[in-house]
Amino acid sequence: MVLLNSEGLNVAVVGVTGAVGTRMLKMLEGSPLPVKILFPLASARSAGKTVFFGDKEWTIKEAKPESFENIDIALFSAGGSVSKVLAPEAAKRGAIVIDNTSAFRMDKDVPLVVPEVNEKALFDHHGIIANPNCSTIQMVAALEPIRKAYGLKRIIVSTYQAVSGAGAKAIAELEKQSEAVLNGEKPETVIMPVKSDEKHYQMAFNAIPQIDLFQPNDYTFEEMKMINETKKIMEAPEIKVSATCVRVPVSISHGESVYIEIDRNNVNAENLKELLRNAPGVVLEDDPAHQIYPMPVNASGKKEVFVGRVRRDPDVANGFHLWIVSDNLLKGAAWNSVQIAESLLKLGLVSA
Amino acid sequence: MVLLNSEGLNVAVVGVTGAVGTRMLKMLEGSPLPVKILFPLASARSAGKTVFFGDKEWTIKEAKPESFENIDIALFSAGGSVSKVLAPEAAKRGAIVIDNTSAFRMDKDVPLVVPEVNEKALFDHHGIIANPNCSTIQMVAALEPIRKAYGLKRIIVSTYQAVSGAGAKAIAELEKQSEAVLNGEKPETVIMPVKSDEKHYQMAFNAIPQIDLFQPNDYTFEEMKMINETKKIMEAPEIKVSATCVRVPVSISHGESVYIEIDRNNVNAENLKELLRNAPGVVLEDDPAHQIYPMPVNASGKKEVFVGRVRRDPDVANGFHLWIVSDNLLKGAAWNSVQIAESLLKLGLVSA
Repeated sequence: MVLLNSEGLNVAVVGVTGAVGTRMLKMLEGSPLPVKILFPLASARSAGKTVFFGDKEWTIKEAKPESFENIDIALFSAGGSVSKVLAPEAAKRGAIVIDNTSAFRMDKDVPLVVPEVNEKALFDHHGIIANPNCSTIQMVAALEPIRKAYGLKRIIVSTYQAVSGAGAKAIAELEKQSEAVLNGEKPETVIMPVKSDEKHYQMAFNAIPQIDLFQPNDYTFEEMKMINETKKIMEAPEIKVSATCVRVPVSISHGESVYIEIDRNNVNAENLKELLRNAPGVVLEDDPAHQIYPMPVNASGKKEVFVGRVRRDPDVANGFHLWIVSDNLLKGAAWNSVQIAESLLKLGLVSA
Repeated sequence: MVLLNSEGLNVAVVGVTGAVGTRMLKMLEGSPLPVKILFPLASARSAGKTVFFGDKEWTIKEAKPESFENIDIALFSAGGSVSKVLAPEAAKRGAIVIDNTSAFRMDKDVPLVVPEVNEKALFDHHGIIANPNCSTIQMVAALEPIRKAYGLKRIIVSTYQAVSGAGAKAIAELEKQSEAVLNGEKPETVIMPVKSDEKHYQMAFNAIPQIDLFQPNDYTFEEMKMINETKKIMEAPEIKVSATCVRVPVSISHGESVYIEIDRNNVNAENLKELLRNAPGVVLEDDPAHQIYPMPVNASGKKEVFVGRVRRDPDVANGFHLWIVSDNLLKGAAWNSVQIAESLLKLGLVSA
């Protein structure tokens, strides 16, 4: 981050106190983006508190339509209902919105962007750009180089998702529940699997096959996000995608067991690994002989997407497995959003 | 269990102090099998200790070749190296061995049995019967009714496996590590993912994509067990099977995200659910509208295989997902072994 007094970008961060919002500030600090003024925004409850950014203290204000006058870029991560109301207000006032919620992702006029995959879709923005779902981002970042080289027929993914996808309070609940179980007490269940849903279950030492609400087709909304967003980001509606999303008792970083079928039968695992070694934003961690493979505890706090366990289906020539792990709050949210802001500047879509 | 003085079966339990061995006693107590004398066997270290069984106290003896004189059924769960040495000794002395290790599973002369699937394979035994791998058992129990009705082209499974598969000490390690992490301390890593392997990693709040040792083809031995054992049990080498096995911080009960392709295109999820409702040993827990689906914390301590999240791939007419959960120490080990003993009696292969 380059903090300037006279020139640079005016950047608003909406939901600045949340698990993703705090990380958006960190990612902005580590970015070469020139920031003139930071506008930390949140709900009325947090207004008046302060945040540190670039060695300066900034006062949080309540996010309102008027907050977005003279803003160049507004990063939103305060929930879908806030984005639905305020993102159009920000765009109307000339800000480019980078929205981390699912509110606009499938809108035709809204680019859904993972810079390593479809940066050029940013040229088609109309004021709002959507940051994809965390579990989708890490998967498409790893699969795009393979799709480009060998084509992708289908994707079948099973996720091992961290509770932080449900917010900072979900991490606290997992910790509290874990303590209770270790003490032989009955854990209190308030948030997981979905705060707004009817029933709540123990997350500690458990696996819950529900992330977000169930849809009429018996898939969860999280699963449908992975299915629909993958096709949109890759601009490939013909790829067959299906998903099972499971929450596991991990605080940060999602794991994904991904099965793909490519368009060719003469490719081996080493060919895929070679692509992944050179893929932007991807780190290949794949050395079974030395027990090297990605794990959530190692990926947390890092910006890259880690890929390992690459191997061919013993019975299917064009079928391959990959194990993909990434920090859901960074590449899955805060970092991808700041990356989009960097791309906007690089492509001349915003000027400092 | 019917405990008799003058008639009934002489039953040996080898590894009686372990996580599976203690449960074998419990399952025997709940079974109609008539037991005349129990022979609790273990390593020299546990010899002299006692176990309670049928309101009587029995003294543990060291397992030796001579221990198996006059034994009708010997249940083994003391590790592959013990089985390799002692199971043939027991069989030589006339006992029927039901072995819970991987030592003999792929031997041509050894039936690999899940009673709901291939009970009749017991007729071909030559003294040793193998109990399949825990993660395989629950999967084939759920899939066999589907295979019989509609045929199975392929299976792609991603597991969410409990640490108790690595023994009682692995549960203790998970608990100790969890406490350490909650207290902000560095957890000690001794057992997971594989005690005999070189490196050990934090299991608490993590997901580790390694169960058992890596094979030359970059699959783990656990994954190869699922692939090979499934084909043997179903007597269907033509089914394409592939697997990714992941350890999660759960104490007991494995979860499995299973994707199948059946031989027909005109079947819907409700057809599969109807089969599963009537499948022996299977309980369908599938009501997304009311957040009903299987979870490890609910399955633990129960003998059944729980199946939910049954739904069709949106893009593939013959592709379906299932989420399968079962207690890896019961149906995955102790209960399946005792079930095999019950089948032997029922089929007249052993007589009380």
